[in-house]
Amino acid sequence: MDPSAAARVRAALAELPPEIATTDPDILAGYARDQSRFTPSETPAAMLAPRTTDEVASAMAALRRHGVTVVPRGAGSGLSGAANATAESVVLSLHRMDAILEVDPTNRLAVVQPGVVTAALRDRASSAGLAYPPDPGSVEFATVGGNVATNAGGMCCVKYGVTGDFVLGLEVVLADGRVVRTGRRTVKGVAGYDLTHLFVGSEGTLGVITEVTVRLVPAPGPAHTLVASFAALPDAGRTVTAIVDAGLTPSMLEILDRTTVRAVDAMSGMGLGDDVHALLLVQSDDPDADEVLARVEGLCEQHGAADIATSADRAEGAMLLEARRLALPALERLGDWLLDDVSVPRSRIAELIAFVEEVGARSGLTIGVFGHAGDGNLHPTIIFDDADPAARAAARGAFDEITERALHLGGTITGEHGVGRLKSGWLAVEQGPVGMELHASVKAALDPAGILNPFAVMPREAAGSR
Amino acid sequence: MDPSAAARVRAALAELPPEIATTDPDILAGYARDQSRFTPSETPAAMLAPRTTDEVASAMAALRRHGVTVVPRGAGSGLSGAANATAESVVLSLHRMDAILEVDPTNRLAVVQPGVVTAALRDRASSAGLAYPPDPGSVEFATVGGNVATNAGGMCCVKYGVTGDFVLGLEVVLADGRVVRTGRRTVKGVAGYDLTHLFVGSEGTLGVITEVTVRLVPAPGPAHTLVASFAALPDAGRTVTAIVDAGLTPSMLEILDRTTVRAVDAMSGMGLGDDVHALLLVQSDDPDADEVLARVEGLCEQHGAADIATSADRAEGAMLLEARRLALPALERLGDWLLDDVSVPRSRIAELIAFVEEVGARSGLTIGVFGHAGDGNLHPTIIFDDADPAARAAARGAFDEITERALHLGGTITGEHGVGRLKSGWLAVEQGPVGMELHASVKAALDPAGILNPFAVMPREAAGSR
Repeated sequence: MDPSAAARVRAALAELPPEIATTDPDILAGYARDQSRFTPSETPAAMLAPRTTDEVASAMAALRRHGVTVVPRGAGSGLSGAANATAESVVLSLHRMDAILEVDPTNRLAVVQPGVVTAALRDRASSAGLAYPPDPGSVEFATVGGNVATNAGGMCCVKYGVTGDFVLGLEVVLADGRVVRTGRRTVKGVAGYDLTHLFVGSEGTLGVITEVTVRLVPAPGPAHTLVASFAALPDAGRTVTAIVDAGLTPSMLEILDRTTVRAVDAMSGMGLGDDVHALLLVQSDDPDADEVLARVEGLCEQHGAADIATSADRAEGAMLLEARRLALPALERLGDWLLDDVSVPRSRIAELIAFVEEVGARSGLTIGVFGHAGDGNLHPTIIFDDADPAARAAARGAFDEITERALHLGGTITGEHGVGRLKSGWLAVEQGPVGMELHASVKAALDPAGILNPFAVMPREAAGSR
Repeated sequence: MDPSAAARVRAALAELPPEIATTDPDILAGYARDQSRFTPSETPAAMLAPRTTDEVASAMAALRRHGVTVVPRGAGSGLSGAANATAESVVLSLHRMDAILEVDPTNRLAVVQPGVVTAALRDRASSAGLAYPPDPGSVEFATVGGNVATNAGGMCCVKYGVTGDFVLGLEVVLADGRVVRTGRRTVKGVAGYDLTHLFVGSEGTLGVITEVTVRLVPAPGPAHTLVASFAALPDAGRTVTAIVDAGLTPSMLEILDRTTVRAVDAMSGMGLGDDVHALLLVQSDDPDADEVLARVEGLCEQHGAADIATSADRAEGAMLLEARRLALPALERLGDWLLDDVSVPRSRIAELIAFVEEVGARSGLTIGVFGHAGDGNLHPTIIFDDADPAARAAARGAFDEITERALHLGGTITGEHGVGRLKSGWLAVEQGPVGMELHASVKAALDPAGILNPFAVMPREAAGSR
């Protein structure tokens, strides 16, 4: 770190309560990066863990005055590097602000601090006879603040939507320490610009979220589960299309490709078999779930499913979904991994998976695909040897090829993991020049000094080394 | 209009195809204002009706160069004055851009131009076996572009959400003529800032919407209908709360207060009776609608409903809803009217209606309340004599008192009609100083010259006279 930057950080910290700041290198090492791969990061100069909105506001004001860059951080479970630090930056961790402030069943809402673990909110809503549906894979350790900042998704999105669909209002500390409340506590409201959803998914580049008001929904009925295996990938793709065309909306509609199924078999001895080229996993929590799944079963048969298993039992359903739960762990066992996150129109899923198989064959890389077939959001997972520079380059090449193809199929470069530092180069491709100018205008309007997470989202000369 | 402003308008028009511009005073008179009351307006200097995005872009570039202010306009059916013109402005009407460009059933989306009438999109979606739920009262003549610009609501919102919840992506012409595409065609996507929803509800102050990609949903089942009358308002309020607390989500949950019921009786001879202090109108389109309404019926009985009628028949259901359809027409017959649009947490509906009754009694004004009980969005409708200045002042006073009370009850100044010019003063009360600074920053970032609808949304010295 250059000496003047170090002096600026020291000067800012000197203005803050010492008990919210740490510069202990052992602690700081744990705040350098999130769970992404291929993203640059450095150990930050300091970590701040404020306890109140006022402390966040004071911290931002001090950091702003001294020109110190800030990386806001939830649980650090992100997969795109949005929480990665630079040596000259201070990480602002919201983990101490972890109170569920209110659950209001009649108005179906909850008010929480950003550091609340998502599963804790889910369980608390459940105790009140309601549900908070967003269920990213990291639900047991990710925080609501991080989920809001990245607009996290999950398996329920096909029916319930993503995190942002549940955010009614926010309290946000701006880059200069001003505190703003956006949104509302009512179901409907159109007073002024939708600043709430401008902050949702902005990955800490526009403000620091210090309170979240979320919408809750009635607890759904018990889910019924169906798993179907296919000997041919296009059949599975056509089945997904047929389910959607039939007007059915499952609460889960997942797909595993052949590579993923084999990895799961290898890990678990589950014996799904080498003939399986795709596995569909479906749940419905509709009041008429049995009828919905009977129709899904019919469509699976019609489109050539090899095996179909169903259950109305919760425990049995969880067993049927075991292959989905093991998808990433099983692929991880094969080597180092780079996880992509693209969305395509759901009618193009089979095309994308076929393309990934082609890339795998051509590059000699193992690439498993699993994900949310019901909303077209897939996670091609590239296995490679991180110690081998050629393999690293090949993995990055495959990643970029797949991302490009998703765009070409009418999709997007990121369905739920965000841009972070992993895909800031790709953002410009998707948004085009005017879109990027607009992003820059908004960023400049809200953070004119550019101190908030300056290397995330927007392409910029990269800082930090891996 | 001052001569230099007139010259600027002439100079801008000279750069545009003559067939898209009109300065005929007879035509212009029809473009001076929307359907709101108590909002200033003037006949605009010209009206532009571009046929393509390119023409909108050229128009904006020319108007920007010459510093001419622009009021974008859909069908002019708004109720807050957001489409009201000033003498020095040009109205940009999107009515010629009225093509439904695409309906894609498998990906459950449609792409439309902004001038498409909402009912046309609804019918087209229906032909494809899908539904476009947003149903503002103006659905038969309002346009999709106008609905998006105001984030319009309707009766289905309690289950399906508002217009913005169905917008996946936009094409927008910016204040200087640049064209940007926001959002996506996929179900999920988190690439960059949510610029789509920044434009949704911005009432033509940030850009001109030239194309809309909307999400469609499976066509719902046939709706079952229930109507219940109550001899005491608090009982109706408690019933609404009980329905929500029971975890039920009707597709419609409307309320009419005593004043509105009497007006409907007077107009229609429906004979609902003087004893009725509140009427609840409920529909469910769930697969188990009969069970849902049986439970609603039980809750109505439990909370003291006087009369309950139900029907699973479509035509009979429409008859049961006749009182709701007549609410505004019946109140309109009583005199001039000023329609408010506030949302409160649904647990506070009865309190708000009771307060409105108190204001009515105190001011000697007739004020009917009807609206969307299920989401807390109510329309207190003040009847007065527009020819009497004292009555006008009293009406405005009552309007402001009710709006303030809604805020005090944890609500918002506008649930679905928008801020426009009617409530720009109130926006600052709801948003607070930092919120307004943030609004101003965003506005300045997107429209630095301030030519887009400069008197809507943001409080500013008013222009134009009534």
